[in-house]
Amino acid sequence: MSAVTDGPAAPRAAGPGAEGRPARTRGTVLVVGTGLLGASAGLALRARGVDVALDDPSPTARALARDVGAGRPAGPAEDPSVVLVAAPPDVTADVVAARLRAHPRAVVTDVASVKGAVLDGVAAALARDGADPSAVRRYVGGHPMAGRERSGATSARADLFTGRPWVLVPPEGAPGGAAAPPGGVAGDPGGAAAGALERVLDVVADCRGVPVVMGAAAHDEAVALVSHVPQVAASLVAARLLEAPSGAVALAGQGLRDVTRIAASDPGLWVQILGANAAPVARALHALRSDLDAVLGALDALAADGAALGARARVARAIDEGGAGVARVPGKHGADPVPVEVVAVLVPDEPGSLARLFADVADLGVSVEDVKLEHAPGRLLGLAELSVLPAGRPRLEAELPPRGWRVAG
Amino acid sequence: MSAVTDGPAAPRAAGPGAEGRPARTRGTVLVVGTGLLGASAGLALRARGVDVALDDPSPTARALARDVGAGRPAGPAEDPSVVLVAAPPDVTADVVAARLRAHPRAVVTDVASVKGAVLDGVAAALARDGADPSAVRRYVGGHPMAGRERSGATSARADLFTGRPWVLVPPEGAPGGAAAPPGGVAGDPGGAAAGALERVLDVVADCRGVPVVMGAAAHDEAVALVSHVPQVAASLVAARLLEAPSGAVALAGQGLRDVTRIAASDPGLWVQILGANAAPVARALHALRSDLDAVLGALDALAADGAALGARARVARAIDEGGAGVARVPGKHGADPVPVEVVAVLVPDEPGSLARLFADVADLGVSVEDVKLEHAPGRLLGLAELSVLPAGRPRLEAELPPRGWRVAG
Repeated sequence: MSAVTDGPAAPRAAGPGAEGRPARTRGTVLVVGTGLLGASAGLALRARGVDVALDDPSPTARALARDVGAGRPAGPAEDPSVVLVAAPPDVTADVVAARLRAHPRAVVTDVASVKGAVLDGVAAALARDGADPSAVRRYVGGHPMAGRERSGATSARADLFTGRPWVLVPPEGAPGGAAAPPGGVAGDPGGAAAGALERVLDVVADCRGVPVVMGAAAHDEAVALVSHVPQVAASLVAARLLEAPSGAVALAGQGLRDVTRIAASDPGLWVQILGANAAPVARALHALRSDLDAVLGALDALAADGAALGARARVARAIDEGGAGVARVPGKHGADPVPVEVVAVLVPDEPGSLARLFADVADLGVSVEDVKLEHAPGRLLGLAELSVLPAGRPRLEAELPPRGWRVAG
Repeated sequence: MSAVTDGPAAPRAAGPGAEGRPARTRGTVLVVGTGLLGASAGLALRARGVDVALDDPSPTARALARDVGAGRPAGPAEDPSVVLVAAPPDVTADVVAARLRAHPRAVVTDVASVKGAVLDGVAAALARDGADPSAVRRYVGGHPMAGRERSGATSARADLFTGRPWVLVPPEGAPGGAAAPPGGVAGDPGGAAAGALERVLDVVADCRGVPVVMGAAAHDEAVALVSHVPQVAASLVAARLLEAPSGAVALAGQGLRDVTRIAASDPGLWVQILGANAAPVARALHALRSDLDAVLGALDALAADGAALGARARVARAIDEGGAGVARVPGKHGADPVPVEVVAVLVPDEPGSLARLFADVADLGVSVEDVKLEHAPGRLLGLAELSVLPAGRPRLEAELPPRGWRVAG
């Protein structure tokens, strides 16, 4: 019986008691849009005992979210403390504006991956509908940096946001999303905007996200660099493979796989995201193109004359700058990457051998930070690359071989 | 005692008997250049009982390779059957030519990641030194698609080439590296060139590589697409991070990490590689730039007018083509990727818990194809994503929870 995935209201996360900390969120959180992100937030909040109401234009999606345990179906007259809009990016602004009007005492936030366009869209929608423009001060833009390859409530996880940055754009009473001053929000008589931010911070904390407060423009520039430009680059590199002979593609290694992995993402979603963040992405891509032109000029020169003066230096500069840039990327453990060393162990490709390996490793008191498995086609051996803290490496290298393991390097 | 890494002539691989198949290679293989690739080939060949002689301009590097068990130091009068030149790309042609002259009965091969430039260079060096130009018919260009982040004989592994494509460019008696006809080599009186290819095929087989016979030009076009262009793209994307505010870089997720990982590669090596393959890389990058310009034009139009006609379609096309391209990349199991499904399990972050998990998984008869571990910062739980064959997923989802595991989605 597969109760966890299929059963109604399956216990995907421990109950409130098991979490060991009471919820910070007061009142009801109304989740509008019960796909992967909305349902995951519902699961996380339910795990802390928060009352979660679920709404979605699709009755099926809403029922699915209820069935996985993300909350209860919303009633006709909800009075939520916070509305979490988890709709597709291109309808988010309209849904946020509608919810600001429908729930005059609620703070409304969203999860769309661009923030300036949504903020402008909310203000425009309120104006269009003749609503009180100050309602926008109850809107806190949000963007959790979390996701999965799969979508929908059935892929939701209570820990989807755990330890992940969750950007919040504080309201300022006016559209535009300028940078938030540190420690507070300017021009906020009565503290309404600050109070709105506080409520959403509580929701983020209860989802175990790591709040990052920044202005809409700063956010959009940042995601252009760390998310949207990499996406475009991955797609462009992968597109080059379309007309390659299959013998060429057969030479692919891990480098190509890593660079192009995200090129398999949903085109519909990405058109929405890139369209909504067009200006920052275009700025970054223009800069990238000018670097590309420098490399291309050097390679053209080298193709014509293998000793072309200065050409190799220009290529080296591009590679050097890339190395310096990648050094700024935080590791999987956050901004302060834990140094790890890799121990490669040959593993027979059969059930039980990994279990024996991990049992031996645990026996030696060594904690594994990461594992990568490589299967060798046509051979009954795989390679397990164990990332361990530096102190663990000599221990494994000394103690695994006597236990019958071949340590490969 | 850490005999495996530090001891002299450490038994990194099983002895010949354990491999269960006699060596195909006859006579001595002389490895010239005992870094990662040369020493790994030595280890693989020694494991089959092949006589391996080691040479390197650096006596330290040569002694290190001997100490890890890659072979014996070369004597002053070696008469090898095959010379494997594993020198840096920019000196490979001269070393190959020198060895063709020094060992008139030997076949010479190399491991440089470009082939046309080396082939031209070998012919030029032979002509420059007044050697018999037909000596080039004993040169078989080689390029094993294998490597590691770390270099040097101390990182060498007997299984480095196992299951990996190893490109071989058959000689044709003339420089240029045109495509090899299937099943044989044209214009090869006496079969000298074919005999040369056979000898190197034996070495590749004994290293457990998967030989891929192709012409030099086809090889260079292929690696431009699957290796050199991704490298340049990764560097260019990573370079954009150099001037980003640190708050922006802190938003980095797995997508950015994957796209930019290889940007951390050795700049010196890459300048050599890109310089030696300038024309094919430039061709591919020009095509990439014209795709980039299409996207940029669309984004510029959208930045000016969010409803710009046709702009979203142009963006969608680029993302679509990327998706179609990445679908051509073979999976880790080679050209015929095995379909796997992911089961995510919450794992306490302590020694022994992974061992228990793998023991339970093995107990259920499920074979794990791949593992990804995610640690949640500030929390005593990690997430193990187990890739299993589709049939294994329902079994794990049904049977792991009764054993105390929380399956996350």
